[in-house]
Amino acid sequence: MTTKLSRQQFETELKAIGASQYHNNHPYHHRMHKGHCSIDEIRAWALNRFCYQRIIPTKDALIMARLDDVEDRREWRQRVVDHDGEIADHPEGGLRRWLALTRQLGFDKSYVTSMKGALPATQFAANAYLTFVQERSVLEAVASSLTELFSPSIIVERVQGMLNSYDFITEESLTYFSYRKSQANRDSNWALEYIDRHAGTREDQELCLNALRFKCSILWAMLDALASAYHLGGTIPPEAWNPEIKSDALRDNVSE
Amino acid sequence: MTTKLSRQQFETELKAIGASQYHNNHPYHHRMHKGHCSIDEIRAWALNRFCYQRIIPTKDALIMARLDDVEDRREWRQRVVDHDGEIADHPEGGLRRWLALTRQLGFDKSYVTSMKGALPATQFAANAYLTFVQERSVLEAVASSLTELFSPSIIVERVQGMLNSYDFITEESLTYFSYRKSQANRDSNWALEYIDRHAGTREDQELCLNALRFKCSILWAMLDALASAYHLGGTIPPEAWNPEIKSDALRDNVSE
Repeated sequence: MTTKLSRQQFETELKAIGASQYHNNHPYHHRMHKGHCSIDEIRAWALNRFCYQRIIPTKDALIMARLDDVEDRREWRQRVVDHDGEIADHPEGGLRRWLALTRQLGFDKSYVTSMKGALPATQFAANAYLTFVQERSVLEAVASSLTELFSPSIIVERVQGMLNSYDFITEESLTYFSYRKSQANRDSNWALEYIDRHAGTREDQELCLNALRFKCSILWAMLDALASAYHLGGTIPPEAWNPEIKSDALRDNVSE
Repeated sequence: MTTKLSRQQFETELKAIGASQYHNNHPYHHRMHKGHCSIDEIRAWALNRFCYQRIIPTKDALIMARLDDVEDRREWRQRVVDHDGEIADHPEGGLRRWLALTRQLGFDKSYVTSMKGALPATQFAANAYLTFVQERSVLEAVASSLTELFSPSIIVERVQGMLNSYDFITEESLTYFSYRKSQANRDSNWALEYIDRHAGTREDQELCLNALRFKCSILWAMLDALASAYHLGGTIPPEAWNPEIKSDALRDNVSE
């Protein structure tokens, strides 16, 4: 058996994966935050990303169901609250904030939530995340959430870049991200603590590293699909949103 | 309730989906059979397509497990035999024939079967098919196989085009397809019969039509991913096969 990595070595390995494979390295992200994307490319991004947003509370509920310890479950439950909103007095959550963004970009809520305009590739990638947290060990499921180690910095780039470059984006429509930044810090610290505690062998640590690679590949594949369909001249698959074709997807009073 | 479609109307609808959404309409297929793809694009296609080939017997076993009738199960079992080979005296099946093709293209078998060089998007799409046949009704699972109605014609185009255009492809390496043509005809006739018999309402028929659309979107997404990574100048995701980078994926003695 190979020697177990020290906590510091393990975290260095995790961060090295983020440094090379996290989607802040993707050309589509660079184009977004530098203001090189057209409004339709930003629209396509927000429309497609909903497929990912929507599965987050579901995957968190699935992970919660697999955590044996009540403290762990309570901790993890906060993630569902963050996305679905509080039960009673403050019915605001990440999903609603995301829909506020797609609304400002001109999409009808029902069109976004139906996902009929999303690229099939986006749905396949997002759903692969659901399958992963069901089929793999709970350790791997928790480790796959560690992309949040890297999300605060991509969020800063995204928000600053989009506010600077696009008149059609306002601070208000980006509240999703202002919440996520602190949530992601809290969550990734906890998850890191969890996997440090539960990865008992080098083999466990390797499973965690692979889980993080897998998760990076999902986020990456979603940007690949957007780039292909809306920037590089690849096909827009049959039935996916096509900005060239007049449809009822966009409200009429949208100003560009 | 909307009126149920006659058998003929139903089949017309199914065929209309194939006519517009089957992957014989995809530019990557056109480029392949016209000989416009480079050898590396053909390699990437065969390497990635293995991810789809490998799940076929698994998804067929899953469907078989859900068929209540022994006759139906026996019928469906033939599909597993076609891909995995006979148990005893003739250990040849579709999977081996596919690996003969990737071998002729220069890939080591272990590299192909490890799938470490495949695009994550391909794996997400192929695995979405597995999830579909587990989560949806058996009627929808059977209906999703109906892309085989359209496969004999794409196979003819592919085989003729590739033999005409590429010296590195021989008839022998394409035996996978010569077998598939007759198998697909037999299977799709049976599946069509099955869904005609079991789709009792218009709603059932709509579920079948959507299952076929879903399946077309999987095949389409796989070609989108190839086009993006290997033709349109999109990214080759981290760790996926990159023809520009010398690796141990290709055997040394491959002639171009």
